[in-house]
Amino acid sequence: MEIKVLQDILSANDRIAERNRHLLDEKGVFALNLMASPGAGKTSLLLETIKRLKNRVSIAVIEADIASSLDADKISKEGVTTLQINTGGACHVDANMLNNALESISLEDTDLLILENVGNLVCPAEFTLGVDRNVMISSIPEGDDKPYKYPLMFSVANAVLVNKIDLLPYLEFDFRNFSRGVGVVNPKAALMQISCKTGDGMNEWISWLLAEMKK
Amino acid sequence: MEIKVLQDILSANDRIAERNRHLLDEKGVFALNLMASPGAGKTSLLLETIKRLKNRVSIAVIEADIASSLDADKISKEGVTTLQINTGGACHVDANMLNNALESISLEDTDLLILENVGNLVCPAEFTLGVDRNVMISSIPEGDDKPYKYPLMFSVANAVLVNKIDLLPYLEFDFRNFSRGVGVVNPKAALMQISCKTGDGMNEWISWLLAEMKK
Repeated sequence: MEIKVLQDILSANDRIAERNRHLLDEKGVFALNLMASPGAGKTSLLLETIKRLKNRVSIAVIEADIASSLDADKISKEGVTTLQINTGGACHVDANMLNNALESISLEDTDLLILENVGNLVCPAEFTLGVDRNVMISSIPEGDDKPYKYPLMFSVANAVLVNKIDLLPYLEFDFRNFSRGVGVVNPKAALMQISCKTGDGMNEWISWLLAEMKK
Repeated sequence: MEIKVLQDILSANDRIAERNRHLLDEKGVFALNLMASPGAGKTSLLLETIKRLKNRVSIAVIEADIASSLDADKISKEGVTTLQINTGGACHVDANMLNNALESISLEDTDLLILENVGNLVCPAEFTLGVDRNVMISSIPEGDDKPYKYPLMFSVANAVLVNKIDLLPYLEFDFRNFSRGVGVVNPKAALMQISCKTGDGMNEWISWLLAEMKK
């Protein structure tokens, strides 16, 4: 019974995701869903990405948080359109929340739309949104075992960014173990090492993103 | 309609949590629910706690993961009873999962039962389990804004441990901002700074735990 309800919710979600996909395609918007654990560096990556791209592409950001508008405040200082969604306790963004948010964004004027999902390595991966790419961040302090413990999140990601590599001198992190884990669940994912603090790897990330936008 | 279903699930959960509470009380087991983001240090805290207490109290551990038995393998090496639950995708442990797990543990021989919940700062906080204390770990790399962004988790915690303080020289973390946030949602929570790596703060944590067990 409960499983039936869940299936109904998920298939309703997929139908709305399809609508989102059509709408974004129609308006020529490349949309990216950014997912990670709390504190892995989603907002930092957003800020670094905006700094590097805002003079070349028109960017809009949707910030999803359970509570507060701390991240949206930081992003809007960069001068890009920023919409805050408070999920009111919900642990993820679903297609309907995104659909509502899209109504408040001037899609004609947007090249790149980035959704910062709720900080959560589990639930956001379960909901198709109708975006072009899923990008996830894993960070050095979280440890190299995450692909084994949260396989669904890693399996839906088109790119996996390993952030905070500036902390490698102070922490144990076995890249071979990590990338083996990613390879098992998602051999096609692009895997990049970055530090939003030092800027390491940002060129590779920006190049990847621009190449994907052209596809 | 969907909300109604969720309410039904939660009230069914509460009834089973009540059963767990009675069972644990009857058997004289002090039960602790350990929650945190992925990689904040739940397993490390467990290992350090077991090392310091296993000769004084009889400990059993329930490891909940979406997939894998990596943590249970580490814990069982310490020679304590360890039960692995794989939630099969679920983002939290609910009262029924705990109830099933309790059937497989020799409660008469257990003083302290520690449940390591799924790594998630959102959903586990929504499910009452019937345990004696909720303990959550936040870690320095996650940043000092987490109490503002994940208020429910902080509000249900009897103790908030800030782990990885050994990384303070390399990261910005404003303890005043953090503890102000905890104070807003949960002024009664015990707040401790620890490093599972260096052992800093472990005496305070162990003292707190032993004192709570005597209450």
